[in-house]
Amino acid sequence: MEWNLSLFGFAGAALALIFAYVQSRKVFGYSEGTERMQKLAAAIRKGANAYLKQQYATVFKVFLAVFVILLILAATGNLNWFTPFAFCTGGLWSALAGFVGMKIATSANARTAQAASESLNKGLRVAFSSGSVMGFTVVGLGMLDISLWYTILRYGFHKEPEEIAVTMVMFGMGASFMALFARVGGGIFTKAADVGADLVGKVEAGIPEDDPRNPATIADNVGDNVGDVAGMGADLYESYVGSILATFALASTAGYGLAGMILPMALAVCGIVCSIIGSFFVKTKEEATQKSLLMSLRTGTYLAAVLSAVVAAPLTYFILGNMGVYVAILCGLIGGCAIGYFTEYYTSDTYKPTQELAASSETGAATVIIGGISLGMKSTMASILIVAAAVVISFFAAGGGADYGMGLYGIGIAAVGMLSTLGITLATDAYGPVADNAGGIAEMSGLGEEVRERTDALDSLGNTTAATGKGFAIGSASLTALALLVSYVDIVESQAALDLKITNPAVLVGLFLGAMLTFVFSAFTMSAVQTAAESIVVEVRRQFREIAGIMEYKAEPDYASCVSLCTKGALKEMVAPALLAIVVPILTGLVLGANGVVGLLGGVSVTGFAVAVFMSNAGGAWDNAKKYIERGNHGGKGGDCHKAAVIGDTVGDPFKDTSGPSLNILIKLVSTVSIVFSGLILTFHIL
Amino acid sequence: MEWNLSLFGFAGAALALIFAYVQSRKVFGYSEGTERMQKLAAAIRKGANAYLKQQYATVFKVFLAVFVILLILAATGNLNWFTPFAFCTGGLWSALAGFVGMKIATSANARTAQAASESLNKGLRVAFSSGSVMGFTVVGLGMLDISLWYTILRYGFHKEPEEIAVTMVMFGMGASFMALFARVGGGIFTKAADVGADLVGKVEAGIPEDDPRNPATIADNVGDNVGDVAGMGADLYESYVGSILATFALASTAGYGLAGMILPMALAVCGIVCSIIGSFFVKTKEEATQKSLLMSLRTGTYLAAVLSAVVAAPLTYFILGNMGVYVAILCGLIGGCAIGYFTEYYTSDTYKPTQELAASSETGAATVIIGGISLGMKSTMASILIVAAAVVISFFAAGGGADYGMGLYGIGIAAVGMLSTLGITLATDAYGPVADNAGGIAEMSGLGEEVRERTDALDSLGNTTAATGKGFAIGSASLTALALLVSYVDIVESQAALDLKITNPAVLVGLFLGAMLTFVFSAFTMSAVQTAAESIVVEVRRQFREIAGIMEYKAEPDYASCVSLCTKGALKEMVAPALLAIVVPILTGLVLGANGVVGLLGGVSVTGFAVAVFMSNAGGAWDNAKKYIERGNHGGKGGDCHKAAVIGDTVGDPFKDTSGPSLNILIKLVSTVSIVFSGLILTFHIL
Repeated sequence: MEWNLSLFGFAGAALALIFAYVQSRKVFGYSEGTERMQKLAAAIRKGANAYLKQQYATVFKVFLAVFVILLILAATGNLNWFTPFAFCTGGLWSALAGFVGMKIATSANARTAQAASESLNKGLRVAFSSGSVMGFTVVGLGMLDISLWYTILRYGFHKEPEEIAVTMVMFGMGASFMALFARVGGGIFTKAADVGADLVGKVEAGIPEDDPRNPATIADNVGDNVGDVAGMGADLYESYVGSILATFALASTAGYGLAGMILPMALAVCGIVCSIIGSFFVKTKEEATQKSLLMSLRTGTYLAAVLSAVVAAPLTYFILGNMGVYVAILCGLIGGCAIGYFTEYYTSDTYKPTQELAASSETGAATVIIGGISLGMKSTMASILIVAAAVVISFFAAGGGADYGMGLYGIGIAAVGMLSTLGITLATDAYGPVADNAGGIAEMSGLGEEVRERTDALDSLGNTTAATGKGFAIGSASLTALALLVSYVDIVESQAALDLKITNPAVLVGLFLGAMLTFVFSAFTMSAVQTAAESIVVEVRRQFREIAGIMEYKAEPDYASCVSLCTKGALKEMVAPALLAIVVPILTGLVLGANGVVGLLGGVSVTGFAVAVFMSNAGGAWDNAKKYIERGNHGGKGGDCHKAAVIGDTVGDPFKDTSGPSLNILIKLVSTVSIVFSGLILTFHIL
Repeated sequence: MEWNLSLFGFAGAALALIFAYVQSRKVFGYSEGTERMQKLAAAIRKGANAYLKQQYATVFKVFLAVFVILLILAATGNLNWFTPFAFCTGGLWSALAGFVGMKIATSANARTAQAASESLNKGLRVAFSSGSVMGFTVVGLGMLDISLWYTILRYGFHKEPEEIAVTMVMFGMGASFMALFARVGGGIFTKAADVGADLVGKVEAGIPEDDPRNPATIADNVGDNVGDVAGMGADLYESYVGSILATFALASTAGYGLAGMILPMALAVCGIVCSIIGSFFVKTKEEATQKSLLMSLRTGTYLAAVLSAVVAAPLTYFILGNMGVYVAILCGLIGGCAIGYFTEYYTSDTYKPTQELAASSETGAATVIIGGISLGMKSTMASILIVAAAVVISFFAAGGGADYGMGLYGIGIAAVGMLSTLGITLATDAYGPVADNAGGIAEMSGLGEEVRERTDALDSLGNTTAATGKGFAIGSASLTALALLVSYVDIVESQAALDLKITNPAVLVGLFLGAMLTFVFSAFTMSAVQTAAESIVVEVRRQFREIAGIMEYKAEPDYASCVSLCTKGALKEMVAPALLAIVVPILTGLVLGANGVVGLLGGVSVTGFAVAVFMSNAGGAWDNAKKYIERGNHGGKGGDCHKAAVIGDTVGDPFKDTSGPSLNILIKLVSTVSIVFSGLILTFHIL
């Protein structure tokens, strides 16, 4: 009797979703605090709801259009009939993952502030629990989606596992597409609000961050939820599912068949269990320092990783019998942690790079910008060397020297290994924006200095975990993208001969186009933030000018107008970059053929990875250099150095929260789009 | 009897060098103006001489070390005996090209200012003549170097043309290595001085550019000569020679033999003649506008290009008989002009992108930076699409569909076509810094408002031609890099089997390393400028504080100390990035083998091209957005918008004059290094 892959998935999904539910009950058990706090929380909730509703409405139209195109492709025999429907479920569940995350985050922000007013540990627990809800919802829904489709295809349509693997690798497209909208749209919203609020509030009017007099402050807090929470949830849902499905597809090339598909599922289940265990170790003493807070989160995540590493050994032995594959899994786990460490090294102000960046503010804003850009570019070295080592070691350890396919399976499983403890890493990551919001609510509702200090401590920690989380996301994205590239080649080569020599002009030109796509996509997302932020600047200036008494706390600013401006801006600007990700691979294929598409995938993976690391780390370092100055270095808050650092931070905002993380998704979406449209490209192409 | 390739070269070299000599006589025929002007020119000359002397001393040591290593390689049979010596001549002549350019530029600056005080046309003629000296010296020396070596190898050592082609493709390494030092060192010098002068002078002390009270102002003017002139001369010498030598190597693979080597030489000679003719058409009427000035330069360059295109047809027909190759040449010529046009579109304030960038200063420095970065990234699209089209069309037109080698020859000859009129394009480019210096001297020696207006007009034009020149340099660099990549593959494949499939992990990892090299190299050069600039800022502040009476024109600042600080900074910081270009390909080869090296070359060509275009165009646009504001838009000089734009311009300085143009050289140097060390790599490598 064959092993039932779905059972692993359903068990894992059940575990994760039940744990998420329990955590959400915990969060809702806390009080939302004073009336003022409840009112603020409600305003943020309302704004986030309204934005997501409109975002989904816009996305729905685009999905419908793509769905129809896919149906036509299926009807003309260029695509199997399952993909159009899988496209929709992928999108739906990815959206759901983001939505649940946003819901719990907007319910936890005031509760975290209230809990922090009681004790630091309580604040940490509430924020972390809400992060857990999102983390485990993402992995639970991912497992459920895979298992459901596998069950339908295997037992409903009686397909062979190998066939299912090749079919399901196309299913990632819907999730990726939704994730891209969520990341780009949310990223534009949050950074437009943030940049707009800072430019007028901090720089021109000289009022502090999250000051209730700033009309954009609610929009800024809404942005944390729709960008950093909902966007990230959709993003990592896609990474998680994508890495498993890519490994499925590689399993058959490696000759592992069903066992090669069971292993990633088993690993994922094992990761869920270990993450749950780890999450019980996240707690702190009352007199916690910044360092001990970080340690408490680290204990949880590292424990989960170590446990997973231990359990993965017997799992691999029993399921596959090839312990070289275990080495590949370890490469993923260790590589993820190493990227996390170097991300922290480059972006945390406890290390030299960010401190030197802060010092460069002594000679003005220009040197801060030059310094941040060069820091970000330098930081690509560590990440690329780690990924390079992970690729080479997992390929050869998994047997690539003797059998190409087995080696490539090693690369795929390394990505799964890196993401296996996603439940808890995402929890520590999603915790950040909740703590950030809690700080905002504490400030706006005038809670005491002591509470504000506690929420500041929680928030500052969140910046570090967010940077680490981004490192994980991009590291796994690069491995998954490579696995998808290989899957694409496998799928196409089964139908046509390819000439993938790098000196083939089609491949070479494809590489150039991949680099171009990366840069143009980044440009689009950056200028989208700029356009939207400029409209916020104009609106905030207008309110300061026209609504008398704002500055004296006598009149309340019109928060809703800023929220609605951000919404409009984000929805208007998110479509073009998303379409780019679909149109470019198809056009490349139609002109250059499949060889050109492979070049494109290589170019976008490589350049996209480098640019994403560059942007995320530069942005993180600018943010923390500013915070470092605010803590009294180089003249402290309000001095010339601080002004220069604020400019750096503002430039870094779209870098680290819009363009950088969107690139993670782009590099996978381009691959899945290419896979889905491969039938069409093989039929019609010029070269 | 075989055609004598050297005769073409010697004839071309003689023509170019004689024309350069005649032009230099013309320049020296003008007066250097008042005593004050002579004194300033002498100070600039002295600084530039002192810097270049020390630069060459530093480079000499590095060259000696590499020479010894190459000798050892030759002694152990991993390299032919000619290459170590060719390495030295390449370096020597590249340095000489830069040196001659610097000499004439520092002799022409005061003369241009003096001539401009007589009439605008005279000013243009002097500046352009001095540019011509450099332009024609570069091509003349290039032809001479190639012809001499060819004569020695063919008639001294009786080698076959095919063997000579493969040997000579290694000769580019010396020129590239020297060019990298010149570009990086000069780039650091010029931008450290410029940034330092601006940060304290313009931003803090509020005195205008080139004000004699600014202690860094002489260093700034010296920088124009050692960076923009000497650096660019060495750079384009290397491009010119590199494109011809790469085509030599491809000629034998294509089966064209000697005829395939004669054609690029003949094209080059034809380009020299046409450039000389074109240069007679560069003149203006007295009442010239910005537009008519540009037209006068354009007339000359376009005329030369059109004439070359016409003459190339019969040349190709008689030498090769394959008119598809003529199409490839046209691709190069047209592609170069198209890249030039789009560079102008993105960086000139007569078009929307730069005007919008200027408008973004209304919301502060942060949006100027974001806007400039996104403009630069967007601009990669045009350049990449043009190069992609040029690659595909020249490959297939030259017969790549039937014979791979013939197609690749097409790509090589397209690069030669693009650079064939280098004599005049480089003249219009080198004209810029001379005009810039002339403006500085006019300002510092208190020449009348009218003269300053004329030099401003000449200078502003120089910015546009410099941008166009950079477009040409990077466009041809990308084509040459591809040709060198293919040559590398040809050379290695003649000795060992390669697996260049893009899914080979060694190739994939190589691609990643190529992207990494690009980013780390850019980071090094950027932070070098920052470090050096910070030392200038400190020194200028010190002088303002300690030397009483500077501000009241009563005491003269210590110009020499800034020059010497820039020199020290540049020499100290230029070595690391240059070594990176040598060490990374060798290490990659030792670990990943030749497959990995090919990946590296692909990665660095593609990413390097995109980043170079991004940086050059962003920098150019920031510069011109600032100038646009200075002409009275958005509040004009001294307003808040202007301050924001100055920050953008300062960030753009290392972008456009240090990191960006250095990348052109990097992508070729990495290829030639790989070719030279290919024997070693084939003997020792892990994978």
